[in-house]
Amino acid sequence: MEFGETEFNGTEFNKTEFNIETPAVVVDMEKLRRNIKEMQDIADRYGCNLRPHIKTHKIPLIAKLQLEAGAVGITCAKISEAEVMADAGIDDIFIAYPIIGESKIKRASKLNKWIKLTAGVDSIEGARALAREGVESGKPFRVRLEVDTGLKRTGVPYEKAVDVAKELSSMKGIELCGIFTFKSLNLGKGTTGDREAAGLEEGKLMKGLAEKMRAEGLNIEEISGGSTPTGQFAAMSGGLTEIRPGTYVFYDMMGVKLGAVDMDRCAAAVLVTVVSVPEPGRAIIDGGSKTFATDFALNSPPYFFEGYASVVGNDDLVLERVNEEHGMLKSKAGKTGLKVGDKLLLIPNHICTTVNLHDFVYLKDGDRLEKVDVSARGKLY
Amino acid sequence: MEFGETEFNGTEFNKTEFNIETPAVVVDMEKLRRNIKEMQDIADRYGCNLRPHIKTHKIPLIAKLQLEAGAVGITCAKISEAEVMADAGIDDIFIAYPIIGESKIKRASKLNKWIKLTAGVDSIEGARALAREGVESGKPFRVRLEVDTGLKRTGVPYEKAVDVAKELSSMKGIELCGIFTFKSLNLGKGTTGDREAAGLEEGKLMKGLAEKMRAEGLNIEEISGGSTPTGQFAAMSGGLTEIRPGTYVFYDMMGVKLGAVDMDRCAAAVLVTVVSVPEPGRAIIDGGSKTFATDFALNSPPYFFEGYASVVGNDDLVLERVNEEHGMLKSKAGKTGLKVGDKLLLIPNHICTTVNLHDFVYLKDGDRLEKVDVSARGKLY
Repeated sequence: MEFGETEFNGTEFNKTEFNIETPAVVVDMEKLRRNIKEMQDIADRYGCNLRPHIKTHKIPLIAKLQLEAGAVGITCAKISEAEVMADAGIDDIFIAYPIIGESKIKRASKLNKWIKLTAGVDSIEGARALAREGVESGKPFRVRLEVDTGLKRTGVPYEKAVDVAKELSSMKGIELCGIFTFKSLNLGKGTTGDREAAGLEEGKLMKGLAEKMRAEGLNIEEISGGSTPTGQFAAMSGGLTEIRPGTYVFYDMMGVKLGAVDMDRCAAAVLVTVVSVPEPGRAIIDGGSKTFATDFALNSPPYFFEGYASVVGNDDLVLERVNEEHGMLKSKAGKTGLKVGDKLLLIPNHICTTVNLHDFVYLKDGDRLEKVDVSARGKLY
Repeated sequence: MEFGETEFNGTEFNKTEFNIETPAVVVDMEKLRRNIKEMQDIADRYGCNLRPHIKTHKIPLIAKLQLEAGAVGITCAKISEAEVMADAGIDDIFIAYPIIGESKIKRASKLNKWIKLTAGVDSIEGARALAREGVESGKPFRVRLEVDTGLKRTGVPYEKAVDVAKELSSMKGIELCGIFTFKSLNLGKGTTGDREAAGLEEGKLMKGLAEKMRAEGLNIEEISGGSTPTGQFAAMSGGLTEIRPGTYVFYDMMGVKLGAVDMDRCAAAVLVTVVSVPEPGRAIIDGGSKTFATDFALNSPPYFFEGYASVVGNDDLVLERVNEEHGMLKSKAGKTGLKVGDKLLLIPNHICTTVNLHDFVYLKDGDRLEKVDVSARGKLY
C-alpha cells in the first residue's frame, strides 16, 4: 500500500519488518525518484542547469541520486553542510550564503583546494576577506554575487548590483562567475501567490541585470535562481542558466497549499504513535514541536494551515496544538476513532526544518526499510 | 563584562580566546549556578522536593549540578532522554510521559533494572502493557498516574482519576506511588497569566485528589507538579511533595514576558555574526529558524513577542523575520549601526526548543570557555 492512498493510516508499520521506533521520518523512495526525475526533466526541457539545494534532505545519498539524474552539482547554505557533502565525495558545490569570519574563510579555502567550490558574496567587505585568502592560498575563489529581487534578505540591492560587480571583478583572489538570487513569491494577503508570474519575473530581472553587467565587460556566465514553487517557470523564462530548488525532492503541505503538487506526491512523512486518548474527540501523539517544525505559524497568511501537519488519509483529524513532545489531535466530528498504540503518518507543513529535527530517517523502498543518518543536520556554522 | 550589562553586545567574542564559530549557544555558568540555587532554595523553604525536567538543557553535566545542589532526581520526557542520563550515571529518573509500544517498554524495563525509574501512566491499556513486562521481568515498575488539571493534553480527566488509580493499584507488575500533573497558567487574552493563582490552584487540586485516593486505601506518596512560572507557588501551596520546573535553569524571553525574571537572569544566549548589511536599517545574522526555535509565534496572545529573539543590550534591534539560515534584524530607529562581521548575543523566546537545535553549547565560566555536547538533544523516541 502507498502513503498517498486514502485508506492508508500507517497500520502497515505495525508489521514486524516495519516495527520502528516513533516518531520517525519515513521517505517513500518511489515518490522521491519521481520527484527527482520530474524536476530534472523540467530543467532539461528548457536547457537550464539544475543545482538542487540540499537543505531539504541533508543526506549525501539523496544528493547523489539527484546528481545521477542529471544535476550539475549541489547548493548548500553553510560551510559545515558543504564539508559533509564534500566528505561524501560530491565535488561541485555552491554555497549560496555569505562566508563571513576568518575561520569560515579558512574552511572554505580548504574545500576550495579539492572540489569545485563557488561562494556567494553580497558585500565588498566579505569579498575582500575572501579575496585575501584566495591570493594567499594561491587558488582564487569562484564567486557569484547575490542580488536582492524583492525578498529583502541578503543580496545587494538590484540597482547597486552592477557597481558592486565591477568592484568584485577588479579584486585579485576571487573570480566573478555569475549572479544569483532567491525570489519570493508575490504573495498577497489571503492568496497563495502566482508561481508563474514570480518565476517569469525572476528570469526577466536576472537576465536584464546580466546583460547590463556583460555590457560593462564583466564575466557573467552563471545566472542562478528558482525555488520549488517558482523553478519550472524560472527555467521556462529563458533568463536563467541554473535553477536551485530544494523542497521538490520531498514536497510538503506548503507545496500543496501553493498548488505545486497534490498531497500524495509528498515523499516524506512522519510516523507517530497515539500515546493517550483522554476523551473521544482528542488523541495525543508522540510528536510535537520537536518532531514537526513550527516555522510556519498556523493561520498566518498566506498559508492558513489548519494544523501543524496533515494526517495521511484522514481529513477529520487536525493537529491543532503542539508542545515539545505532545501533539494534540482533534476530531472535527468529535470522535477520533483512535486507540492507544495506533500509528499514523503525517505530512509536515515544512519538510526542510522538520528533517532538521531528526537525527535519521527511514528510507522505504517497497518491502525494504533502511535507516540513514541525516548527516548534514544541524550544520549551522 | 557580563551578558546582561547594557553596553555588552557580544564584542568580547571577537577576542582570540572566545573566537568560536557562530551561531552557537553560550551559557553563562555564574548565572546558571544562581538559577539552580534559587529554585532549590525555594523548594527547600517549603519542604518540597525538586526534580528538575532536563528538557531545557539536555546535558548530563548540568543535570549533575542540579543534583549536587539538592535535587532528588530528574525528570525526562522520553525513554531515549532517560537512557542518555542513566548512561551518565544518574540513577533516579521520572519519565513524565506515557510509555507506549513494546520496544519502548522493553527499553524501560532495562533501565528499571539498574536505576530507580518511575514511569508516567495515563491509560488502562498503557498500564496493562507495562504491568505485563513488570511481571515478566520480575521487577515491577514504579508508576505515577498523570491527571489533567486543565491543559487538555495527556492525563486522565480529573473526575475519573480516582477510579483509574484504583484499577492501577490492582495490577501486578506496577506499583502506584503517586500522581502528577502539568498545570498551565490561566492565560487570558492579552494577559501574561497569574502565576501565583495557577500554582496555588494546582496544589489545592492535587492535594484534594490525593486525599480522596488515600481515603480509598491507595498509596499516594508522591504528588508532583509545578513548572518554572508556577513552581514557587505550587511549592508554597503545601499541596505537592515535588515540583518539576525545567526552564529556570536558563530562563528565556517567555519567562521574562511572564514576569518570572528580568532579562539579565537569562543564562543562555545565542552568539551570532552579522553576515550582510544591505541597507542602513537592516542587518542579516547567521541564525534563523534552524538556530532560534519558532514554536511560539510572534504576536500570538498572550506572549506578544516583538521578535524571534531579543538582542542583549540593544532595544532598537528587532529580529522581525527568520528563514532557515537568515535572521532579519530591523532597526526601529532606521539605523542598525552594524557592520559585516559584528557579533551579537540574543536571548531566545523559548530556550528549551532552541537548545534542541544545537549539537553543542559553550559553557562560559569567567575566562574559560568549554564546548559540551547536548547529549540528549533530539531524543524523540
